[in-house]
Amino acid sequence: MLDNVLQTIDDGSEQSLDGLKEFLRIPSVSTDDHYAADIRRCADWLSGTIRKLGLESQVLPTAGHPVVVARNEHKPGRPTVLFYGHYDVQPPDPFDQWTTPPFEPAIRDGAIYARGAADDKGQVWAHLQAIRAWQRHGGLPVNLTMLIEGEEEIGSGSLPSFIESHRQMLHADLAIASDTNQYARGLPAISYGLRGIVFLEITLTGPSHDLHSGIYGGSVPNVANVLTELLATLHDKQGRVAVEGFYDDVLPLTDAERQMWRKLPFDENRFAAELGMSSSQLGGETGYSTLERQWARPTCDINGMTSGYQGPGAKTIIPATASAKLSMRLVPSQDPATIARKVEQALRRRCPDTVKMEVSGVTWSPPILIPHDGAPIRAATDAYKVGFNATPTLIRCGGTLHVVPQIKSLLGIDTLLVGFGLPDDRVHSPNEKFDLDALHCGTRTAAALYQNLAGIDSFK
Amino acid sequence: MLDNVLQTIDDGSEQSLDGLKEFLRIPSVSTDDHYAADIRRCADWLSGTIRKLGLESQVLPTAGHPVVVARNEHKPGRPTVLFYGHYDVQPPDPFDQWTTPPFEPAIRDGAIYARGAADDKGQVWAHLQAIRAWQRHGGLPVNLTMLIEGEEEIGSGSLPSFIESHRQMLHADLAIASDTNQYARGLPAISYGLRGIVFLEITLTGPSHDLHSGIYGGSVPNVANVLTELLATLHDKQGRVAVEGFYDDVLPLTDAERQMWRKLPFDENRFAAELGMSSSQLGGETGYSTLERQWARPTCDINGMTSGYQGPGAKTIIPATASAKLSMRLVPSQDPATIARKVEQALRRRCPDTVKMEVSGVTWSPPILIPHDGAPIRAATDAYKVGFNATPTLIRCGGTLHVVPQIKSLLGIDTLLVGFGLPDDRVHSPNEKFDLDALHCGTRTAAALYQNLAGIDSFK
Repeated sequence: MLDNVLQTIDDGSEQSLDGLKEFLRIPSVSTDDHYAADIRRCADWLSGTIRKLGLESQVLPTAGHPVVVARNEHKPGRPTVLFYGHYDVQPPDPFDQWTTPPFEPAIRDGAIYARGAADDKGQVWAHLQAIRAWQRHGGLPVNLTMLIEGEEEIGSGSLPSFIESHRQMLHADLAIASDTNQYARGLPAISYGLRGIVFLEITLTGPSHDLHSGIYGGSVPNVANVLTELLATLHDKQGRVAVEGFYDDVLPLTDAERQMWRKLPFDENRFAAELGMSSSQLGGETGYSTLERQWARPTCDINGMTSGYQGPGAKTIIPATASAKLSMRLVPSQDPATIARKVEQALRRRCPDTVKMEVSGVTWSPPILIPHDGAPIRAATDAYKVGFNATPTLIRCGGTLHVVPQIKSLLGIDTLLVGFGLPDDRVHSPNEKFDLDALHCGTRTAAALYQNLAGIDSFK
Repeated sequence: MLDNVLQTIDDGSEQSLDGLKEFLRIPSVSTDDHYAADIRRCADWLSGTIRKLGLESQVLPTAGHPVVVARNEHKPGRPTVLFYGHYDVQPPDPFDQWTTPPFEPAIRDGAIYARGAADDKGQVWAHLQAIRAWQRHGGLPVNLTMLIEGEEEIGSGSLPSFIESHRQMLHADLAIASDTNQYARGLPAISYGLRGIVFLEITLTGPSHDLHSGIYGGSVPNVANVLTELLATLHDKQGRVAVEGFYDDVLPLTDAERQMWRKLPFDENRFAAELGMSSSQLGGETGYSTLERQWARPTCDINGMTSGYQGPGAKTIIPATASAKLSMRLVPSQDPATIARKVEQALRRRCPDTVKMEVSGVTWSPPILIPHDGAPIRAATDAYKVGFNATPTLIRCGGTLHVVPQIKSLLGIDTLLVGFGLPDDRVHSPNEKFDLDALHCGTRTAAALYQNLAGIDSFK
């Protein structure tokens, strides 16, 4: 049956693009209230399109932008799969750097160019086309629930309470999402791990107002100096995070993982050059490769720092306040609440009594690791072989997808990350694109994946 | 003769205020081009006023705002004194915090309120009134040259080249300036030392653009983290500046100075409370008191610091650049060029190769110390006894007056700092004022000072 489905997919690629172009023409920018009507229009359009595939679909309200929830007929004895995607997009600015306008999809050089082409409309579209093909041949072999939100680009803030109040409706054996990338062109990948994050802001206060550094200098605490001394304690000479107990729960990389990643093509010189640096400038924790540092080791980065006079020239003051935004990327099995507490405790213990310290804006999301030798990963691996005619690499991702731990904690299931994008798709930047080949192979992969998931006996 | 002069001063205080009010009404704000015509008008008014006292006076151009240069008849056999002052003022903003408008001088509670009342028009006025009184009684007993500039509040940028090209005209045995304060009400003071300054800006650059801290975190240098680690090396645990050779040329405080300052009334609790702190928050180099730290020990303060995202909430980036403005206050006999070199060398040696470091905007001014047991200080001490009926304290000042080392290096003479202001005059702030009592006693002190300086045989 899958062969027939794939044949239908291979035949219908032109029709596929017309629908995707309609989808991309709607400027569903979630970050800007100016686009609120477009967001709503996009949800309605998407829900209507899914209904035309023969699924039930509805647009449901949240505290923020609405979600689209759809399902085929759920039959007993089949696995239930929850598909997650998002229909909102990043703002298109700066407009003038787009070769063709961001909301007028254009085909050139074998790709479709538009805001949202890869992130995430094009990847959602691959699944819709796979479903359409299955529907022509008797319907999907699994029970499918689709959850497509409109707030991913603004942090999925309304999603947890929506999931929590719709647990029954969203109940499933496994979640799948296509919002990640292939490792490189022709090298599809499955991400089996994500880093988590703890974010916090620290503010030091000394005198009640900026002081003249001549009259007062040397006799009062300078909070900017204190801030540098405090933050400098956060790393040791080996580039490790110097907070007591920070690494206690870090799962060591296995030899198998290290060997697997060592085989991946990775050019340090090219990687550095793309960042405007030389490879000798790369660095980090001693004893790990660049990919290991990005995917499997925790970090502590200053994201922003501000104090005193920042205009042109000199203004010789002793600043009244100094603050920094800090984020720690976490790896399995670090617990965000524990790490947040340990970091704050370390900062408080190390901060001198001469200044006041405030910690604010603490937010977090846990890291994720799914068994890379489990049945879902095997099902996805076989699907990529069908879809891309290539064996996918098993990688992790250094970033954080909030929705994956939300689904894990609220619905108790893992999320399989089967992404079809490419690293050069320029998501969040001008001239975002999605390769037509990625769309086609992704659609085939999705079709095969639903077949393979249907064959799994147990997801436990 | 001095008695007659003082009598004239004591008689004419009402007339004195009318002239001062005219002076204060001219909004000679040097920082804002909008006031350029007022600056010029103020110089013309001042020069005309001085001519009415019987001195020669002219308004001379510089590369920036003009200077007023005046002189009495120079007779052989008398010391020549160079009076330095400035007619420009700070901007009056914020307007709405003034009880009466900044350029409509108002008398209340025994003080005259206006922008420039104490800094420096009122203090210049004390000297003009002293000169007027002397002129009624046969003329000043010294050769006097007056140099009154219009750029003090913007760094006296045009003054060095003006002095350099008018060396002959400005030749003198000693300079005097009244642009400083009494130690406290009823405790007049002579500042015999000033700190110098070295200012510089340091910028670190890593990747060519801000990076996603999830995707890249841990594998590329974070310049904000590196900046904190670098700047944290600038002090040791004792609060000393940890730069090789930084203290090599620091003159130790003498026992006599420490004893003299220990006798000054100084309330740590009140000092801290005025800055919104408790006295336990005060701090600095181990082994020194607050006044010693302010007046006689060098510093290294961060004046401003900037990196990455500084808006509300979280944006988890790895910043492309991080920079800090740094200033070192210097004490005798530290050499600014040497200190600038040592600090830059230390920073470069300590900066890791993974980031690029740029040092820019280096400017400096040397520290000043004049013999506190020399004839000029004795002449000033005796003048204060006459003017204020109190023995002045000998203090230093933690701030920097660029003009004093300029006069020292270009004309080869010391500058005697005889200030009449009070610490609560709110210079540079709304509701600046000058006590009428300070004006009167200051005028008497200036009159006596000219007499006392006339009696000095040698200024070498």
